[in-house]
Amino acid sequence: MSEGVEWAMHCAVILGGLEPGAVLAGKTLAEMHGVSESYLLKHLKALVQGRVLESVPGPRGGYRLARAASEITMLDVVQAIEGTEPAFRCTEIRAQGPCAAPPEACARKACAIKIAMLRAEKAWRDSLRGQAISDIANSLVHDIEPPRFAAMGEWLAERVR
Amino acid sequence: MSEGVEWAMHCAVILGGLEPGAVLAGKTLAEMHGVSESYLLKHLKALVQGRVLESVPGPRGGYRLARAASEITMLDVVQAIEGTEPAFRCTEIRAQGPCAAPPEACARKACAIKIAMLRAEKAWRDSLRGQAISDIANSLVHDIEPPRFAAMGEWLAERVR
Repeated sequence: MSEGVEWAMHCAVILGGLEPGAVLAGKTLAEMHGVSESYLLKHLKALVQGRVLESVPGPRGGYRLARAASEITMLDVVQAIEGTEPAFRCTEIRAQGPCAAPPEACARKACAIKIAMLRAEKAWRDSLRGQAISDIANSLVHDIEPPRFAAMGEWLAERVR
Repeated sequence: MSEGVEWAMHCAVILGGLEPGAVLAGKTLAEMHGVSESYLLKHLKALVQGRVLESVPGPRGGYRLARAASEITMLDVVQAIEGTEPAFRCTEIRAQGPCAAPPEACARKACAIKIAMLRAEKAWRDSLRGQAISDIANSLVHDIEPPRFAAMGEWLAERVR
């Protein structure tokens, strides 16, 4: 999984803490997290395409969540960065070789291996779908000592648009 | 995920159907599934290292399951091929930048994002751990028409060691 998932998740949490309509520049998000601005911009673009973020153009523009943090799940963020293709690749090798299953048998029922592998991926997706960005933000805020939380708020207040 | 997972899973199922102690050569497993022998050997080696398979050396040697098919799970096979590292990579970016969490705060509690991402991976592992190779074999046998199952048995009987 790309490092972009970690970056995207942190950005979504920070953007979820802004007042409605407010935005942060990609440069600010990169500086805050100490990551490469050019790499982060690529991931922010993917988040816009995945409808997790909205991009506001112009010199006072930036990024904001596309909807309430309670309505964006971790799965939305992961799939915006990593895509929605299953991790398991079934190339139907049961249809190859001297004991190959005929095409009609393959068409009738998916391979039991594929079914079980995709069932596991569904369990992974269900877990991520059960966690909204707002849930993660609440946990993170709970973990931050109040003085650091206040300093973070001040740093952001000077840069929010 | 590498194509090796699909190949390894099919090989484990086939080897689980042999009489106790019997082996199949890597060449036979490759021919049966219509896949590259050299690539498959690399994956079979990983399965031996992961204690899913045992390798019997010598001109009449080959591969067999390391224990009963009911005691080998899909997770064992996947982890033998893909390793046990989590897919999600946490680089602790909360400890970077102008609002960085201090090292002692990071040591005290893992980042809520990491916790949630790893919880999802545990759900995936739990699902795969709940499926033994024998369960998959039973499903696959159920899906095969009896004449093709008999032909497959004959093909294997000529090659089993």
